Amino acid sequence: MVVYLDLLSQPCRAVYILLTCTKIPHKVHAVALRKGEHRTPEFTNMNLMQKVPVLVDSGFILTESDAILKYLATQYDVPEHWYPRQPQQRARVDEYTAWHHTNTRAHAAKVFILEVLLPRHMGSAVDKVALNNALSNLKNTLDKLETMFLRRQPFLCGDDITVADLLAICELMQPLGAGRDILKDHPQLQRWRSRVQSAVGKSFDEAHAVLYALRDRRQAKM
Amino acid sequence: MVVYLDLLSQPCRAVYILLTCTKIPHKVHAVALRKGEHRTPEFTNMNLMQKVPVLVDSGFILTESDAILKYLATQYDVPEHWYPRQPQQRARVDEYTAWHHTNTRAHAAKVFILEVLLPRHMGSAVDKVALNNALSNLKNTLDKLETMFLRRQPFLCGDDITVADLLAICELMQPLGAGRDILKDHPQLQRWRSRVQSAVGKSFDEAHAVLYALRDRRQAKM
Repeated sequence: MVVYLDLLSQPCRAVYILLTCTKIPHKVHAVALRKGEHRTPEFTNMNLMQKVPVLVDSGFILTESDAILKYLATQYDVPEHWYPRQPQQRARVDEYTAWHHTNTRAHAAKVFILEVLLPRHMGSAVDKVALNNALSNLKNTLDKLETMFLRRQPFLCGDDITVADLLAICELMQPLGAGRDILKDHPQLQRWRSRVQSAVGKSFDEAHAVLYALRDRRQAKM
Repeated sequence: MVVYLDLLSQPCRAVYILLTCTKIPHKVHAVALRKGEHRTPEFTNMNLMQKVPVLVDSGFILTESDAILKYLATQYDVPEHWYPRQPQQRARVDEYTAWHHTNTRAHAAKVFILEVLLPRHMGSAVDKVALNNALSNLKNTLDKLETMFLRRQPFLCGDDITVADLLAICELMQPLGAGRDILKDHPQLQRWRSRVQSAVGKSFDEAHAVLYALRDRRQAKM
């Protein structure tokens, strides 16, 4: 099995963490988004969407991190807690992942795009109005994560870690690339982040090494 | 089992169609969004997100249409094609539904919001610039649906209808509320719509009766 990843992409990190901490045998093929390697004819031929991650499992090509994580948890021999088989527990994971796309992912990514990607690509200053608006939307999402998903349980979908936690934590780490810890006023989410880190071990820092390096380079420049 | 629905909401119609055409015993509790019935204390107590659809199955409360459809197909005795058990076939459904949120759903809904909801609620004219922008994004999504998902198969995820087709068709029908058939220049999607209609029988028109009535009222006014 081969996975095509850029570890600066949040959903790619979620896939990387699941693969490494469950020890599913795989090869990583790095795709550098900043060099446009997702737009080459070869890559486009494999994924017309020109996006990462992509999984290729004996010729079966799968896109969308959400689908890839669930496929890995179903097809490979990994501990069941990652994607429980019991229908109501599984539905909780599907409920979070459906919500994720237009909430956690949309709002945390927007902050990173406004603070890091757009200024870098356009050579322009950060749009402060847009950034404040994005931070306000993000705060709303963080509040919901605490009051709804983590209200009565240690992980987003129950007593143990699932693929939902991986998707969420990798999005919420992203603004750290600009030195911004968006969880600093959310103690409940901080404790959850620690629990996720403990559960996945060293694969967490391995996955985020590129993001930490980006943060450190930016801080050194200031 | 009780489902809380407003049939003017696209994801609610998808849930309604699956329930009725597979004959899963259920009761429908109507929630009129236009009257704010999703913001009452009783409804909020059940779903803090204040959104429909909501499913309550013997005390188990589930939100998010994507999760509800998959739960119904897993938990109840419905034909397997709705959500195949074979991991790669299932992954295809998960791949589409993950893509759906920020593509089919986002772009078709935007057209309806700009042409129907905003003018009605604000008493203002349609914002033509925003509408043209939304139509252009929608065209891009429709092209991808044809060239990627329907490229080599009659339904979005394979040879038979799945919950993915229900989510998609209900979104793509929505602009019809303003008299706009967004599939008119997409013959491949039109043929797919006919196949979906045939597969689900009369539940299709039942689910869309409120939307047809909205379209007819608007046409009568012109």
